[in-house]
Amino acid sequence: MSVHHVTITVSTEGPGTYEITDRVAAEVRRAGCRNGVVTVFCRHTSCSLVIFENADPSARTDLEAWLERLIPARDPHFTHTAEGPDDMPSHIKMALTRTSESVPFADGRLMLGTWQGIFVWEHRAVPHQRSIVITVIGE
Amino acid sequence: MSVHHVTITVSTEGPGTYEITDRVAAEVRRAGCRNGVVTVFCRHTSCSLVIFENADPSARTDLEAWLERLIPARDPHFTHTAEGPDDMPSHIKMALTRTSESVPFADGRLMLGTWQGIFVWEHRAVPHQRSIVITVIGE
Amino acid sequence: MSVHHVTITVSTEGPGTYEITDRVAAEVRRAGCRNGVVTVFCRHTSCSLVIFENADPSARTDLEAWLERLIPARDPHFTHTAEGPDDMPSHIKMALTRTSESVPFADGRLMLGTWQGIFVWEHRAVPHQRSIVITVIGE
Repeated sequence: MSVHHVTITVSTEGPGTYEITDRVAAEVRRAGCRNGVVTVFCRHTSCSLVIFENADPSARTDLEAWLERLIPARDPHFTHTAEGPDDMPSHIKMALTRTSESVPFADGRLMLGTWQGIFVWEHRAVPHQRSIVITVIGE
Repeated sequence: MSVHHVTITVSTEGPGTYEITDRVAAEVRRAGCRNGVVTVFCRHTSCSLVIFENADPSARTDLEAWLERLIPARDPHFTHTAEGPDDMPSHIKMALTRTSESVPFADGRLMLGTWQGIFVWEHRAVPHQRSIVITVIGE
Repeated sequence: MSVHHVTITVSTEGPGTYEITDRVAAEVRRAGCRNGVVTVFCRHTSCSLVIFENADPSARTDLEAWLERLIPARDPHFTHTAEGPDDMPSHIKMALTRTSESVPFADGRLMLGTWQGIFVWEHRAVPHQRSIVITVIGE
């Protein structure tokens, strides 16, 4: 059993889901473990993770639009507005989705389902460099 | 320290929560580890996991009905509709709940609270065979 | 590689977020591992975990108020009401946030982002003693 950390950077260009499945899979291969769990951890509070359908992009478009309708910018109740109208909605969207995910792997391959991809979900409007920690624990 | 994977199948018969606590506990015992963490991973994008009250079924009924009211089928905004009106709501319900959970165990027993059970939450109307990976890491 | 469990108690005095970052960090140091993952697990169904902004308290106030507006007490649809009007909303708020989180650590320090803190989110009105399991797996 051993532990391997790597931090990757994901460049985002506005709200949306950015797939990182291949990058996570590559780190599992690089770690050289056959069986274990890879933990993906998002080091931010205005973007998040989600494991979602990666075949038809319309599913992601509908998901993003639905969450935008649930938590619109410029809600007059918000008091935390110094960083712009999309900041507080971004924090809420993050809290409703995921900061960490643990994905099993066997024979060096992620045990994802056929339609599953791992995504960084950017909630802010301006471009960001997002930092994601990938930790492989296995044997 | 060692790693043990098993994939179980959960048969679902329409929307609702299906308890798998005993099956997860059995895999921890079978792995023969005394202390560690068991990761439960749902390999689908239209069903999810939740750890929830398992004593009074009315709590689960109310939870399921509340989420149905939040994300009704046939929302005219949806474009991802080729697989039926309950498909896109299923993806959203999955994204708002959980794909992976990590549960500690000690002396070979899950450290769940008194009222906690582990559930697969089916969001689709038609029966499915759902695949769940249980990974025991421990010593 | 080794496993270390500790269960901490968090005293809550009504709804809100209670930071436990320092307590989790202390358990990682105490375990004496340099690299690995710490799993934080909430043993309850009416409080939850969230990793959130810990700099400006107004962000947490806005988050808590937003979720209260989404899931108000005394929803006439609820049938699970024997434990009071804030019980069923508490279960739903828990299901929409997190029961387990996995946080990587390196050189004995949590790899959290600059603005991230780990919080227990109490959803019930009356004071509670909440039990949280911290499990360090590392080398």
